[in-house]
Amino acid sequence: MYGQQGYGQAPQGGISPEIQNWFTMVDKDRSGQINYQELKSALVNGQGEHFSDTACKLMIGMFDPNKTGSIGINEFSQLYYYINQWLGVFKTYDRDQSGGIEENELAQALQQMGFRFSPDFIKFLIQKSDLQNHRVMSVDQFIVVCVQIQRFTEAFRTKDTEQRGMITIGFEEFLNIALNCTT
Amino acid sequence: MYGQQGYGQAPQGGISPEIQNWFTMVDKDRSGQINYQELKSALVNGQGEHFSDTACKLMIGMFDPNKTGSIGINEFSQLYYYINQWLGVFKTYDRDQSGGIEENELAQALQQMGFRFSPDFIKFLIQKSDLQNHRVMSVDQFIVVCVQIQRFTEAFRTKDTEQRGMITIGFEEFLNIALNCTT
Repeated sequence: MYGQQGYGQAPQGGISPEIQNWFTMVDKDRSGQINYQELKSALVNGQGEHFSDTACKLMIGMFDPNKTGSIGINEFSQLYYYINQWLGVFKTYDRDQSGGIEENELAQALQQMGFRFSPDFIKFLIQKSDLQNHRVMSVDQFIVVCVQIQRFTEAFRTKDTEQRGMITIGFEEFLNIALNCTT
Repeated sequence: MYGQQGYGQAPQGGISPEIQNWFTMVDKDRSGQINYQELKSALVNGQGEHFSDTACKLMIGMFDPNKTGSIGINEFSQLYYYINQWLGVFKTYDRDQSGGIEENELAQALQQMGFRFSPDFIKFLIQKSDLQNHRVMSVDQFIVVCVQIQRFTEAFRTKDTEQRGMITIGFEEFLNIALNCTT
């Protein structure tokens, strides 16, 4: 191949052999489609565990507009670069290279994404991810949290037309947003 | 044993041998504690699949106030009856005994729990559960949806002090409720 494929950069036309190989490896039942279980068995986080069901469903769902529950090679190709981008972001903030992001690292990451959350909220996010020790967030949990926060932000902004940082909302609508943004 | 243990009824004092046997079976690593993976490997839904990670984390979390990620036999005993209660509710609404609840069955279940949702919202709940066919909800998904809706209802009511069915809420608070009520 000529040149170097940029980190997290989408491929320019066609499916690279690298992606093709990955796809074939992940598509265990040779259906030509990848579902979340297949994706899960291919992805391991810095804690030596497979990515969570939630993370895999979320990521498949992002490239599966018809909600079939699985994606073909073209969508996989996009997903592949998407995951690599997140891995890049994660590594930037995981300064001690521990494979997990800690409280201060997460606070910094979210701040640089433009969010101003209270220390309690950051603690809450970590606690929710690391049920046992309340200390670190793995890369798959980081992806889930970032995607959910982004989705909530968009949903919130749609309602917050005057940009007051406050919205008035009914119960079903509230439920709908909350359940729609989480997987 | 004397008498018959009522369906979904909490045991009166002590741990029954039935619960003890279950606990020993589920606690594969003999740690004296059950985590969500152990629970998952013990529970199968009417579709012949294991309960989802989400359902198992949610249920462990309900009986794990210290957020250790696992529960002992006393909490397991409560969880055991709790799951049986949900199975009972599910079977009541699964009129055709298909092992899955369909749109009209779910609408009826939620209505009898006191919720008035639009048909679109019911469709959305089913779609979210059955990514492939948009038709049925399994028992573990049903438990997750009901628990989430209950939690959201409580969180919403706390804010909706005048019972207008509408609340005004800021972004972090909104995120906090949404992420807290979902697992």
